[in-house]
Amino acid sequence: MEQRINTEVWKALIRAFLPFKGRDVISILDFTREDLEELFERADYFLEHRRSYRLLEDYVVALAFFEPSTRTRLSFETAAKLLGAKVIGFTSEEGISIAKGESLADTIRMLDAYADIIVIRHRYEGAALFAAEIAESPVINAGDGKQHHPTQAMLDLYTIRKLYGSIDGLVYGVVGDLRYGRAASSFIYGLTLFKPKKVYLISPPLLRARPEVLEVLKERGIPFEEVTKVDEVVEEVDVLYVTRIQKERFPDPLEYERVKGSYRITIELLKRGKEHLRVLHPLPKVDEIEPAVDTSKYAAYFTQARFGVPVRMALLILIAGVEP
Amino acid sequence: MEQRINTEVWKALIRAFLPFKGRDVISILDFTREDLEELFERADYFLEHRRSYRLLEDYVVALAFFEPSTRTRLSFETAAKLLGAKVIGFTSEEGISIAKGESLADTIRMLDAYADIIVIRHRYEGAALFAAEIAESPVINAGDGKQHHPTQAMLDLYTIRKLYGSIDGLVYGVVGDLRYGRAASSFIYGLTLFKPKKVYLISPPLLRARPEVLEVLKERGIPFEEVTKVDEVVEEVDVLYVTRIQKERFPDPLEYERVKGSYRITIELLKRGKEHLRVLHPLPKVDEIEPAVDTSKYAAYFTQARFGVPVRMALLILIAGVEP
Amino acid sequence: MEQRINTEVWKALIRAFLPFKGRDVISILDFTREDLEELFERADYFLEHRRSYRLLEDYVVALAFFEPSTRTRLSFETAAKLLGAKVIGFTSEEGISIAKGESLADTIRMLDAYADIIVIRHRYEGAALFAAEIAESPVINAGDGKQHHPTQAMLDLYTIRKLYGSIDGLVYGVVGDLRYGRAASSFIYGLTLFKPKKVYLISPPLLRARPEVLEVLKERGIPFEEVTKVDEVVEEVDVLYVTRIQKERFPDPLEYERVKGSYRITIELLKRGKEHLRVLHPLPKVDEIEPAVDTSKYAAYFTQARFGVPVRMALLILIAGVEP
Repeated sequence: MEQRINTEVWKALIRAFLPFKGRDVISILDFTREDLEELFERADYFLEHRRSYRLLEDYVVALAFFEPSTRTRLSFETAAKLLGAKVIGFTSEEGISIAKGESLADTIRMLDAYADIIVIRHRYEGAALFAAEIAESPVINAGDGKQHHPTQAMLDLYTIRKLYGSIDGLVYGVVGDLRYGRAASSFIYGLTLFKPKKVYLISPPLLRARPEVLEVLKERGIPFEEVTKVDEVVEEVDVLYVTRIQKERFPDPLEYERVKGSYRITIELLKRGKEHLRVLHPLPKVDEIEPAVDTSKYAAYFTQARFGVPVRMALLILIAGVEP
Repeated sequence: MEQRINTEVWKALIRAFLPFKGRDVISILDFTREDLEELFERADYFLEHRRSYRLLEDYVVALAFFEPSTRTRLSFETAAKLLGAKVIGFTSEEGISIAKGESLADTIRMLDAYADIIVIRHRYEGAALFAAEIAESPVINAGDGKQHHPTQAMLDLYTIRKLYGSIDGLVYGVVGDLRYGRAASSFIYGLTLFKPKKVYLISPPLLRARPEVLEVLKERGIPFEEVTKVDEVVEEVDVLYVTRIQKERFPDPLEYERVKGSYRITIELLKRGKEHLRVLHPLPKVDEIEPAVDTSKYAAYFTQARFGVPVRMALLILIAGVEP
Repeated sequence: MEQRINTEVWKALIRAFLPFKGRDVISILDFTREDLEELFERADYFLEHRRSYRLLEDYVVALAFFEPSTRTRLSFETAAKLLGAKVIGFTSEEGISIAKGESLADTIRMLDAYADIIVIRHRYEGAALFAAEIAESPVINAGDGKQHHPTQAMLDLYTIRKLYGSIDGLVYGVVGDLRYGRAASSFIYGLTLFKPKKVYLISPPLLRARPEVLEVLKERGIPFEEVTKVDEVVEEVDVLYVTRIQKERFPDPLEYERVKGSYRITIELLKRGKEHLRVLHPLPKVDEIEPAVDTSKYAAYFTQARFGVPVRMALLILIAGVEP
């Protein structure tokens, strides 16, 4: 196990020193802090100059969503189209040849034949890396398996930088399903590229962060602590990164009902926190955040969603090797 | 009930005096006759100059079809793309995060974050208005609930203007399901912005026009009469606006079979009418019109469908505040 | 039967002498050798100059996929978008008005109202011809029924021309389901426009080529032979065109299992063939080709898939009557 982790981190480190142009985007660990700063600078530009461009007009971008997604897909589509790219693709496995028994490898080869950049979403761990090994065109992981959703982490980190001016020196609380939620794991991995003051991992015992995630936190010397209740740490954190706890994760529905309340974010809870405390969420949310929070000063998640477009525009141009 | 109706009409009246640019399009009652004439003028232009434009090249248009649609969706897509807009969206609820339990409000907020104009189709009454209240971007109702489908009414009225030179002074027969069919209600509402000589509401007793629709006809002084058979009035009408009667509306299938025949439009029936009598239909049709009518001089519905593109192009540029 | 065949061939011959511009593309038999050479020349251009164009920027192309498809749909979409066309459409019958009982004729009329070129895929034989008779816009058959998939044949023939310099004078083996597979029939029809040295039709007795296909081979004087095993002819052929044999074609699953092995293409088998022997396949494939073939010199099918884009770009500009 340990061996496998280190190999993965090692591979990510190697990828992290490649030039941006033409690079595959598999894990947020593939990037250095400098990479992300380069990215954020372009995102700032596109946030300020929201209009259409012809930068990618000779590019075909394939959106290969083997698993449904709304936000990630629509923001990638918006980003690619605003850059002038031609966008093709599919939004679920149904109706594509996978249904006829075609191998994933063959489907990827087809996309590679038509597209210059492939954006892939897949429920299986490692699908994006597998695609990248087959395709000549760069592959962007739009979420696969339980750990990696690198472009989500990019926009999460970008949001914090916009809100606080810096990602360093803050206290973070990451709440919810840290075991199966790929957004949470990716966000934690992303934090390890910076210098957070402390990271609280807040989850029910059943949904604790994966050993490989803890391993990376340790290796990179990030102060962290696992706790089981939000209200233990709400006064200390600057950022609460909340994720959904799915009922289906619990063998016993009663156990889920019992646990749910402790992870619900309410106005009352947030009022006990710091003045500048803000809540992030990769969305969609169901009832893990009280609706009253939506219209309060605490809610940063709608702004966060909005940043999906400039951040993904920035990523696409860097991979294409063009500048606005 | 009465109160609610008047409030709705009142709100629509207020919206009707807003400038076109940036306006939400919820009900055809939101518009004045002058608004529609402004719209028809632009539609004339696009009908005559069918080509692509860059007028909306910096615009992202979201087509949010929570309920399936072919004609409305494809003609909006054609219109937006011919204007140079970037189009994103979805064509059914499946596969979007609504399926994961996301609230409609959150889905709208997401679309608002990515798009500059939101086109929404939803089975629930009031969904478009709800969306408009949440979104900063203008919202266009592409059909919701049982009453409102304003862009359909726009192209219906435009078709009549092209066929007869004027919408005023004609005798109209509106046939079919006037209770649950949103196209029929919207068309009747649309007529109240003009001066029809008379409007016949032709339907089985079970599917009579809704009280709120009759209320608006009365308030605006439009002469109308409810009848149950097309052949009672076929000699008098200038325009027959036909809609589908769905079997499912009848508790007893036998009742449906018995009723169906009286609402079927045949060549024989039409020959009894005026020389210039024309049949409109929002489409799709099933068997409520005899196939022989399709290729006769009476059929105006294919032309009507064709006008969906220039009328929707006109609406989009007026909302964006640009001119060809 | 004979009569019907001749009428079809006759109609195709007539279509084959029409100018390219505005032409319907129903069967590969609609084309002359000269037509295809004209097409291949443009495909060469687009293969060499892969970039976006504005040639079709005033065109709306409808992709009407009543039956799912991945490769054909995505390569048409890529081709149309790289030419600057606006692309609209649907990817299955679900969710379009066909589901509400609309006739195919009405659906085609709608597409005709919005689009300048209609690309249609349908499971029923003759659907594309039917559409062409109704629509004013040119119709391209993207596969219908069991015999016709003309654009697949175009790219197949183009691939052979690129591999061997010429389509004439070679020995072909067409393997698999020659009865129900439209790609196989279209490929054989396509070969009859050239001068193959010999065509082997290799299939289980149950899945032999259709009488109408054999009729065309005879009429056009193409030397051919029906055989039941690949290894009988592997040493003689220059090109193996392999297609999938679907389990569902066999009334008895045991019969399928027994037959399957004889049609599986392995490296061992191919090594017995000529030095320059190459394998084509319309894809998707399941297990009819041993995976080791994929990365061998024998595999031409991924290149073949790649050629779908330039060949379809060439076809679209010839139909639109524009030149790069």
